[in-house]
Amino acid sequence: MNTSSVDLNTGASTWHVVEDRFVPSLAAGRESIFTIGNGHLSTRGSFEERIPGEVRATFIHGLFVTPPGELPLLGAVPDWTELAMTFDGHPFGADGALGGYRRSLDMRTGILEREVLWRASESGVVKVRFRRLVSMAQPRLAALEVTLTALTNPVELWLETGIDTAVPSPSFSVWNPLRWSRPSKSNLRLEAASIDGAHRLVVETSLSGPGRLEMIRDPHHHRFTSQTMLPVGRPVTFTKFTVYHSSRDSGEPAAPPGPDVSFDKVAAASGRAWARRWQAATIDIDGDKIAERGVRFAAFQVIGASPSDDTGAAVGAKLASGFGYRHHVFWDTDIFIVPYLTVTLPGLARNHLGYRYRGLDGARRKAKRYGREGAFYAWESADTGDEVTPEWTSPSFGPPSRIWTGEIEEHITSDVAFAAHNYWRWTGDDKFMRDEGMEMIVEGARYWASRLQIEANGAHIRGVIGPDEYHSHVDDSFFTNLMAGWHLRTAADLVEHMVVDTPRVAASMSSRLGIGPAGPESWRRLADDIVLLDRADGVWEQHAGFFELEPVDLSKFTPRLKSMYDLLGMERAERSQVIKQADVVMAMSLHPEAVGSRPRRKRNWDYYIERCDQGSSLSMAVHARVAADLGLGGEAYDLFRAALAIDLEDIMGNARDGLHAATQGGILQATIFGFAGLRLEGDEPVLRPNLPDSWDRMGFSFFHRGKRFERELTGTKARRRRAASPKSTKDKEERA
Amino acid sequence: MNTSSVDLNTGASTWHVVEDRFVPSLAAGRESIFTIGNGHLSTRGSFEERIPGEVRATFIHGLFVTPPGELPLLGAVPDWTELAMTFDGHPFGADGALGGYRRSLDMRTGILEREVLWRASESGVVKVRFRRLVSMAQPRLAALEVTLTALTNPVELWLETGIDTAVPSPSFSVWNPLRWSRPSKSNLRLEAASIDGAHRLVVETSLSGPGRLEMIRDPHHHRFTSQTMLPVGRPVTFTKFTVYHSSRDSGEPAAPPGPDVSFDKVAAASGRAWARRWQAATIDIDGDKIAERGVRFAAFQVIGASPSDDTGAAVGAKLASGFGYRHHVFWDTDIFIVPYLTVTLPGLARNHLGYRYRGLDGARRKAKRYGREGAFYAWESADTGDEVTPEWTSPSFGPPSRIWTGEIEEHITSDVAFAAHNYWRWTGDDKFMRDEGMEMIVEGARYWASRLQIEANGAHIRGVIGPDEYHSHVDDSFFTNLMAGWHLRTAADLVEHMVVDTPRVAASMSSRLGIGPAGPESWRRLADDIVLLDRADGVWEQHAGFFELEPVDLSKFTPRLKSMYDLLGMERAERSQVIKQADVVMAMSLHPEAVGSRPRRKRNWDYYIERCDQGSSLSMAVHARVAADLGLGGEAYDLFRAALAIDLEDIMGNARDGLHAATQGGILQATIFGFAGLRLEGDEPVLRPNLPDSWDRMGFSFFHRGKRFERELTGTKARRRRAASPKSTKDKEERA
Repeated sequence: MNTSSVDLNTGASTWHVVEDRFVPSLAAGRESIFTIGNGHLSTRGSFEERIPGEVRATFIHGLFVTPPGELPLLGAVPDWTELAMTFDGHPFGADGALGGYRRSLDMRTGILEREVLWRASESGVVKVRFRRLVSMAQPRLAALEVTLTALTNPVELWLETGIDTAVPSPSFSVWNPLRWSRPSKSNLRLEAASIDGAHRLVVETSLSGPGRLEMIRDPHHHRFTSQTMLPVGRPVTFTKFTVYHSSRDSGEPAAPPGPDVSFDKVAAASGRAWARRWQAATIDIDGDKIAERGVRFAAFQVIGASPSDDTGAAVGAKLASGFGYRHHVFWDTDIFIVPYLTVTLPGLARNHLGYRYRGLDGARRKAKRYGREGAFYAWESADTGDEVTPEWTSPSFGPPSRIWTGEIEEHITSDVAFAAHNYWRWTGDDKFMRDEGMEMIVEGARYWASRLQIEANGAHIRGVIGPDEYHSHVDDSFFTNLMAGWHLRTAADLVEHMVVDTPRVAASMSSRLGIGPAGPESWRRLADDIVLLDRADGVWEQHAGFFELEPVDLSKFTPRLKSMYDLLGMERAERSQVIKQADVVMAMSLHPEAVGSRPRRKRNWDYYIERCDQGSSLSMAVHARVAADLGLGGEAYDLFRAALAIDLEDIMGNARDGLHAATQGGILQATIFGFAGLRLEGDEPVLRPNLPDSWDRMGFSFFHRGKRFERELTGTKARRRRAASPKSTKDKEERA
Repeated sequence: MNTSSVDLNTGASTWHVVEDRFVPSLAAGRESIFTIGNGHLSTRGSFEERIPGEVRATFIHGLFVTPPGELPLLGAVPDWTELAMTFDGHPFGADGALGGYRRSLDMRTGILEREVLWRASESGVVKVRFRRLVSMAQPRLAALEVTLTALTNPVELWLETGIDTAVPSPSFSVWNPLRWSRPSKSNLRLEAASIDGAHRLVVETSLSGPGRLEMIRDPHHHRFTSQTMLPVGRPVTFTKFTVYHSSRDSGEPAAPPGPDVSFDKVAAASGRAWARRWQAATIDIDGDKIAERGVRFAAFQVIGASPSDDTGAAVGAKLASGFGYRHHVFWDTDIFIVPYLTVTLPGLARNHLGYRYRGLDGARRKAKRYGREGAFYAWESADTGDEVTPEWTSPSFGPPSRIWTGEIEEHITSDVAFAAHNYWRWTGDDKFMRDEGMEMIVEGARYWASRLQIEANGAHIRGVIGPDEYHSHVDDSFFTNLMAGWHLRTAADLVEHMVVDTPRVAASMSSRLGIGPAGPESWRRLADDIVLLDRADGVWEQHAGFFELEPVDLSKFTPRLKSMYDLLGMERAERSQVIKQADVVMAMSLHPEAVGSRPRRKRNWDYYIERCDQGSSLSMAVHARVAADLGLGGEAYDLFRAALAIDLEDIMGNARDGLHAATQGGILQATIFGFAGLRLEGDEPVLRPNLPDSWDRMGFSFFHRGKRFERELTGTKARRRRAASPKSTKDKEERA
């Protein structure tokens, strides 16, 4: 018998996430963890057979559907994974007849495998192995294989599998079947339309295996059946390929591979495509298996969920692993994902920026609605870039609460600009900046210029929500104001730079956007006037009046599973100094110098860390990154480990709704930008490492201006032995 | 927020087992893990408030009850832990209002603590801390404390707690209340009788805390109530002491401590008593926290479940942590627990041997029933030593199966003799040997002498079950025959030794038991005639015909959660070479030299390890011990880690029924006798260490003839560096 655990951080290989027990109450969360994606399709790790409480879904980027009276959501497309079996008449499923169980995600190749021993009847044991993948080589292709071995007695198998349109998203199906057909004996084809009429979809599946294929013509779920005897000791294999082709795709639908193609062949091609991505994305951490597995998991999920050939789609707040937030795109992507992709797989970062550029008209419409100029990006966006944040929560119990973020969490506009500008700095992609980036940044600057309230004592931004969402309608949010100032100055720099470098482009843009020659200069003056509040000891005030709010001793509220917001209630939290997440600390991670000298940053850290609830999945990894940068090794590592646990141990209790994009991106950024200390100084990439004590070595690579740099760092222990003096900070610098 | 996990092997301190999430489907298993015991009382870690699926129980050693038509079982006594509360009218419990959760067992002091944050209503958060212990200083005393702190708003508390007789064991209560009384305003007293009339019990509880105490006079569950306001920020404490006094105790019932005594005071006394035990029982393992925590857990549970002042009771197969096996005593105690206690806390080993001596008459009755002489120990025994093994299984589904162990698993008689003889060798307790040990051993020898079937080709024992219970009614079980031979020779040695040393005692015993002067000599001749089957390469045949059974390739049956017995079914398993557990390997652990030279033992290991299902909780730790002894470091460690997981990760899926005594004892024995290599050579204790690679240092102590020896061992890595040559085995010896 194997050592078994419900914990996923076991096993020797850090390239695998292994589950060796089936715990019903954890199953829906595990479906999120075992999601596989290929940059186009993403499929949750639901079992082939149905189980109670499952949240079955395959998502295709960009196929947003708007059910009547609802906001758009990325619905589940018709399902390719469902497969039902009986052995000697006994339905196969994860119940009492389960004699063995192991599920393993191979992150190197993207193959999800499940092995089960099943006691079919009084005398027969069947070994069942499922393998599935969504091909990284052919993004519209999904492959499923089931291999059955009767270990003790011949067993009669009945198998059913097809295309299931009756998959709730998450409460009802958003695809209507239009036409079923059978292009060949072993092929089944569906044409479907989204319930809002916006999209068409063709799904074709091929099935090969023993037995004569019959067809069950359930209107919502056509499926093949096969009946066969499983001989003792000889594996019997069924292979199913499914191809999706939507009205967003060009060309004609391709047919799925036929019976001459094996799962292994498709897997090999997909594995080679994954290998190319891992060449850029692999981070090795010697001496800390949990961290190494954690960063592999983060990279696997971020890469799998990042649109690879589509600039009309972007990574949602739950990656593409659940129905949480309807797959809407938040600043999570711009700030927590894109900077990572920029230095690792810049093509994927570029796709996202293309999505934001396509969303610019929606952002202009939003600015106009508030009577302002330029572009005000949507807090949540779906396909068009228009604002799709709901106005009310829909709790299971109790009255709904008003959601203000779509109206006043304004820093999003600068977050988009930050992602674009940072991409340009690292890649030197001037074409992007000329064609798309500049326009986004300038339109955002024009928004801020029209938004600022100029008074005798400075320029204010009143009535916003900052990153700390426990406090709303605040004035002069430090993060928001700092970002707005940075945004205005950056836009000014870019325009002036363009006037010199490419005067023709500059002239055309200036006239199109209505920027006079004095524009840049006025933006700079405005930026200088923006109010940033602080007190005598150098601690920045998160927003006007924060220092006067009720202090709460968070240490009394332990052990804690819920956020302080949930515990205290909305009104009470809003009146107190409890903050949801990194806010001033968030500013430190993006613009450390602007927050101040290292001692000043440390004072701000000390003040805010003890008021921080870590009540958001966006918080811990950012704190880890900043702590590493401040040389707070132990704290940085503890926060990092806690961030690793958010999804893999489901410590927020909501993994069922999908993985946390900001957490997974944040983990990668804490590793590369925090522990390895990668940054640009001027135009030069530089490493200022602060590796955790337990890390003997960290190896990774990054891109800068089209070149890949491979780097190996030695653990801080060894480093400390070499340079024991406190003045040795300088020695830590390594030119990249 | 804390990093949270359903895994118990987290956290920094190896003196603690910490659970920081509540998972309903794991809860009943966790109740077993969080059992606290003091050598008299054992209480499962059920919550104070009732939850669905709980298995609530406090056990008192020796209080076996025989419900009508059933076998005796150690039933749950009336409960001291139940405590119900409402906050502003909302019932407290582990449901949606749970805002924080941590349960922590401090193994050093024996205190089980649970901290919960509870959202009492829209606006109020209450911190609830429970602490409980069963006093190691006063074994009949249990203490419970609950501390409530309103963190945000005043909250109205309603609290109920008393003595609950309606505790199923496990399907109905086995105690009838006879009389309730209220000796004082804050004391509640119950006199109860067991349903078979065999025992009486007095339970008295005292409650102190704020509010006026009222009484609810539920006939099965009298309880105090208190109503009070919890002020903000000021902790409010209720303290409850409960004293049990049964008809097996002498003297008058003591009253529980009054309101002048705090929980901390009782805890301090109990902690000092634990400290004395830990002085003898602490095993330190540097470099392997999971192992260090695992051996602490094993020692904590074994010591807590070992009767400390009662030779009429013994450790059951589930320690005293669940209803599994009705607390019946198996060879698990003699072979897996007592040798550990013998070298650590020999007084506890002695108590067990007293229990076996009291059971001798039952064993004589069993021998007589089969028409044999001497004593045939019960495979399962309860209070009297009579056989109490059920004859049929009682499965939830399907037909029952016949259980033969009570009739033919005969090696138990020699297992008892082994425990007694081993105790005597280590302690030099001649008085025990003279007064009790000799009689047990000799009566067992007389059993074997009458049992052996003497034929031309040797003496046989036919129709038995050996340790491998997948095969029953086998002839010439290697383990059984080897133990019988050892037993006969040992008895002969002891009798001859006694005739020389204490002729008067010898004469009295010989006449009482009817041993003629030729007896010892005839036992020795018989022993020499006992058949032990082997084949040319030196592999012993587990029993006659084993080599001809159907081979099964166990590697095909992976991943496996169930035993091969469950997977294949009884008949099929019986016809195959799949074995349940260490059998020939078990013999190697007790009598290595008798099995053969080290190369021969290695050949036997190789043959049997690949046929072993590890289908018993008795198996893996023994394998680990033997592998360590054979120098198979990696295998030994893997098996050891798997053994650690049996209860703490519930890999057999039955932790709900109680912890596995043989696993926990086996872990301790693998550590001390396997990895540290403690053994007697002649009369001298010797260490032949084989520490796992990851262990930097192991520190422990042992008793030999009344003296405590403290020893520190260095990890094998360091040792290997010192002595790289393969001939350095000798160097590893360390005189104790």
